[in-house]
Amino acid sequence: MLGEFDIATEVTRIDAGRFAAQIASGWDIAGNANGGYLIALAGRAMAEATGRPPLSVTAHYLAPGKVGSCEVIVDVLRTGRRTSTATARLISQGREVIAVIGTFGDQGEQGISVIDARPPVLPAIENCIRTKPPAAVGTGFGDRIDVRVRPRDATFRDGTGSGRAEVAGWFAFSDGQSVDAIGLLQVADAFVPVVFQRQEFPIAWAPTLELTVHIRGLPAAGPLRCVFRSRFMQTGMFEEDGEVWDSAGVLVAQSRQLALIPRI
Amino acid sequence: MLGEFDIATEVTRIDAGRFAAQIASGWDIAGNANGGYLIALAGRAMAEATGRPPLSVTAHYLAPGKVGSCEVIVDVLRTGRRTSTATARLISQGREVIAVIGTFGDQGEQGISVIDARPPVLPAIENCIRTKPPAAVGTGFGDRIDVRVRPRDATFRDGTGSGRAEVAGWFAFSDGQSVDAIGLLQVADAFVPVVFQRQEFPIAWAPTLELTVHIRGLPAAGPLRCVFRSRFMQTGMFEEDGEVWDSAGVLVAQSRQLALIPRI
Repeated sequence: MLGEFDIATEVTRIDAGRFAAQIASGWDIAGNANGGYLIALAGRAMAEATGRPPLSVTAHYLAPGKVGSCEVIVDVLRTGRRTSTATARLISQGREVIAVIGTFGDQGEQGISVIDARPPVLPAIENCIRTKPPAAVGTGFGDRIDVRVRPRDATFRDGTGSGRAEVAGWFAFSDGQSVDAIGLLQVADAFVPVVFQRQEFPIAWAPTLELTVHIRGLPAAGPLRCVFRSRFMQTGMFEEDGEVWDSAGVLVAQSRQLALIPRI
Repeated sequence: MLGEFDIATEVTRIDAGRFAAQIASGWDIAGNANGGYLIALAGRAMAEATGRPPLSVTAHYLAPGKVGSCEVIVDVLRTGRRTSTATARLISQGREVIAVIGTFGDQGEQGISVIDARPPVLPAIENCIRTKPPAAVGTGFGDRIDVRVRPRDATFRDGTGSGRAEVAGWFAFSDGQSVDAIGLLQVADAFVPVVFQRQEFPIAWAPTLELTVHIRGLPAAGPLRCVFRSRFMQTGMFEEDGEVWDSAGVLVAQSRQLALIPRI
C-alpha cells in the first residue's frame, strides 16, 4: 500500500536514464518544494536506475522547485559489486532545480559496532509541539509530515528562542507510512532551521546551498528521534548537522547542509 | 612563487570544459593518489572553470587514481550572482577516478558571527608526532605534507591506540606554501584514519566512498589546527568529521566522509 510520500515521489522511467515525475502539490512551502522532498524525488529515480538504495546522497540547490511536471536525468557512472554511483539533474519548466550525486548500495553486514553517541532525550510525543509553516505560506507540507519538537525548541514562535542553534523532536509521516531509505532523505530537511532559535538572526528563508545525507541503517517501525544543530554561523552561512535515530535506538541517518543565514 | 602542492595540482585548459592534468608522483600512497589530493586537483579545475573559489565540494571515489596523466571534465551547471555550481569527472587511463559536485563563490561578508565551538587544544608542534605512511608504502606523500599529531593519537603505531576514534594535530605543507581554499580540500583527507585508534579494527586501508568539504574561511598564515572524529562505526562503515582551524582561531573548513571500516 503506497503512502502519500511514496505517491508524491513516484517516478516513471521514460528511457534508460530519464524519468518523468511531478513536483507534487502539498510538499511545498509558498509554492516552492521543500528541499528534503526534492532530494528524495531525485534519490528515488537514482535508486531505480541503479537498482540499489541510497548510502550517501548530496544535492546542490540551483533554483526553486515549482509544483508541476519535471524530469530527472540520471547518469550511472559506476556499477560495482557492492555499490553504484550516479548523478542526477532534476529539471522543471526548463530550469535545473537540483543537481545530485550519490552512492547507492545495501548496508554492510552488522560486524563490530562502536557507537560513541546517544539518541536525543525527548519528551513524550504528546508533550512536544507540532511546528508547521504559518498558514499564510502553508500548502499542507506541515500536514503531511508530523514533526513535533521539544517545547524549548519551538520558542522561536513567540519571538524568544532558546538561544541554542539546536532543534530536536520526533518525525513521522502523518499517514503512518513507514520511513525507508528514500524517506530518510526527506527527514533530513523537514525541521525548522536551527538558526531560528538564535535571536541574532531574523525568521526568514534560509536557502540551502548543499545537503548531504548518509543513510546508516534501515529504520525500525515507529517515530524517529531527530536532532539538528549548528555550531558555526559565520560569513553569512551556517552548517546544520542532523542525526536521525529509530525507535530501536539505532542511528539511521546523518545529514549536513550548508545554508545561508536568513536576511530580512 | 608556486609551491609543490600548486605545481602538483596544476591544470591546463584544453577547451571550455576540459582540463589536462597529471596525477603527480609523490602525492600517492603505494601508487594510489591520496583522496584529498584528488579532490583538490578536480577542485582546482572547477575553480578555474567557474572563476570562483570552492564553498562546498563533494567527491565520490570510483577507482584508485594512479600516477600519470589525466583529464578533468567540468560542466558548469549554473552561474549566479554570488555562486556557481559545477560537476567534474576526473578520468585517468580510461577509468573514471572521482566524480565531483561543488558550489563555488567567495565567503560572505563578516556579518554577525555565532560560534559554539573551540579549536582543539594541541601540544606545541615540536611536542607532536609526525605520522607518515610506513616506508614500505611510502612514496613521499608524508614528506610533502607536515602532519603532526598529539602523542596519544599516534599510539596506533605501537599496536595500542587511544581507544577514541579521534585524531588531532597540526597541518602544514612541508615547503611552507600557505594553505588556500584549494589547499583546504587536501587538508580534509591528510590525516591517518581515526578508526586506527580503536583496537577493534585492523590497521589497513579505509576506502573513502564520499568526502564533502565546506570551506568556511580563508586561512591566516601559519600551521592549521585540525581534529577528526568518528562516532558511528557500524555495518562496516564509519563517518569521519573534520574541523580545520587557522592560527587566528577561525574555523576555515569542515569535512565529513563516509568510508569503509578496514578489513584484513
